[in-house]
Amino acid sequence: MNHYWNLSYLATKLRQEMILVTNDDGIVAPGIKALVEVAREFGNVVVVAPDSPQSGKGHAITLSNPLKIRKVEMFDGVTAYECNGTPVDCVKIAKNVLLKDQSISLCLSGINHGSNASINIIYSGTMSAAMEASIEGIPSIGFSLCDYSFDADFSASKVYARKIIADILLSPMQDCKLLNVNIPALPTSEIKGIKVCKQGAGTWVEEFQEGLDPRGVPYYWLTGKFQSFENDEVDNDINALKNGYVSVVPSMHDLTHYGEMSKFKLLESKI
Amino acid sequence: MNHYWNLSYLATKLRQEMILVTNDDGIVAPGIKALVEVAREFGNVVVVAPDSPQSGKGHAITLSNPLKIRKVEMFDGVTAYECNGTPVDCVKIAKNVLLKDQSISLCLSGINHGSNASINIIYSGTMSAAMEASIEGIPSIGFSLCDYSFDADFSASKVYARKIIADILLSPMQDCKLLNVNIPALPTSEIKGIKVCKQGAGTWVEEFQEGLDPRGVPYYWLTGKFQSFENDEVDNDINALKNGYVSVVPSMHDLTHYGEMSKFKLLESKI
Repeated sequence: MNHYWNLSYLATKLRQEMILVTNDDGIVAPGIKALVEVAREFGNVVVVAPDSPQSGKGHAITLSNPLKIRKVEMFDGVTAYECNGTPVDCVKIAKNVLLKDQSISLCLSGINHGSNASINIIYSGTMSAAMEASIEGIPSIGFSLCDYSFDADFSASKVYARKIIADILLSPMQDCKLLNVNIPALPTSEIKGIKVCKQGAGTWVEEFQEGLDPRGVPYYWLTGKFQSFENDEVDNDINALKNGYVSVVPSMHDLTHYGEMSKFKLLESKI
Repeated sequence: MNHYWNLSYLATKLRQEMILVTNDDGIVAPGIKALVEVAREFGNVVVVAPDSPQSGKGHAITLSNPLKIRKVEMFDGVTAYECNGTPVDCVKIAKNVLLKDQSISLCLSGINHGSNASINIIYSGTMSAAMEASIEGIPSIGFSLCDYSFDADFSASKVYARKIIADILLSPMQDCKLLNVNIPALPTSEIKGIKVCKQGAGTWVEEFQEGLDPRGVPYYWLTGKFQSFENDEVDNDINALKNGYVSVVPSMHDLTHYGEMSKFKLLESKI
């Protein structure tokens, strides 16, 4: 099928539908600007994003303080709000206050400055925002570019985000409402394509930078290095990215370890 | 087998092993005191817990600020530290600074004041701390009592926590290193036993309390009500608790939606 015809068909179909865009790097990050530029080709975009960097906020919500929102003009006519909460707060306030009683067709989060492959899905505010929308039944895609720098080049990311959004709108998500998309830091011509794969196993080898504050009190500042547990053969996001592919991991919020449930049946007893 | 003989055997076996205890309600919460009282029957306990309430912090980590730790005397001779970070930070700093080069046999988190059944595992600092330890390969159990009050009665929780910890130490966890344990707010005699089950499906029906701050700026304060998507027949933590059972959900941090992966293969292409 002609891709451009599809895009035009989709643009017509979705003109009245709502696409929520958010991120965790904050509303001024170049990554969200790139995502808005792609998203607006497909529908009526509303941005609700944190007013400050929220990397590593995971699925945090703000319970003990009130949230505030402020309408901002940043994306050339696209309705946008900044919020003093976490990425997940932004999705909650979008759904329950700003877009209350409106149907959100799609939530897009990112484009994150830095990889959210492997275990990083757990720590990432970008992916947690997308997951929050998916918990509410909204099809959601989190996009991340494997380049942490503020002035990263998002041109290949935009090309692949456009392709994935178009395909998902043409073949809507069913039981799985959450995709974790990571894009290697390569020019479009060097990206080998898209791989649908599982979450690779890995962890952070943590190190804390230790020092003394101005009052002589010791402090510990989190740093560290990602360590993969995967060998090169397995089809997972770590290897896909290493081999120059965009990785797409269909993801979920049911954390039950079904494969091991029977082993724990021995716990069932009454005191 | 005689349970008390086992406990005594375990106490001897584990005297030199390390049990890390943490929570998200903060180091002064009665729930962690109850958990320490049980944990010390099984080994050498070290507490590393937040110095302030951290409910709803999910898997947040502190990247942009340094962490500080302070040794405190609160648990009748048990080594304890409070930390100004999140629950996940506490686990990271325990593993990488305070207990560096020591082997942690078990991480216990809680006892949380309030349910962490169903989708709450995602938002909970208590469960995220336990998950963080499990990512590091440390067998971990998060305990939560379905009573949000500060002066909740933890006596039945202690009885069941003791039973589950003993069983897990006798039959160590293998592939699955994380249990989400929720205890109904009932006297021990009215609890029907333990059910090993899956994570129930549900969400929060969010409401924001709206108001104006002292300067006339509108604010939105998160509140809401949990809504179950489950019917009464299914074996999940929501129903187990409703029927008077302690729920145990074997859990994991691989979020791949394996069942739906093949449906997304259509995305695989090259631009």
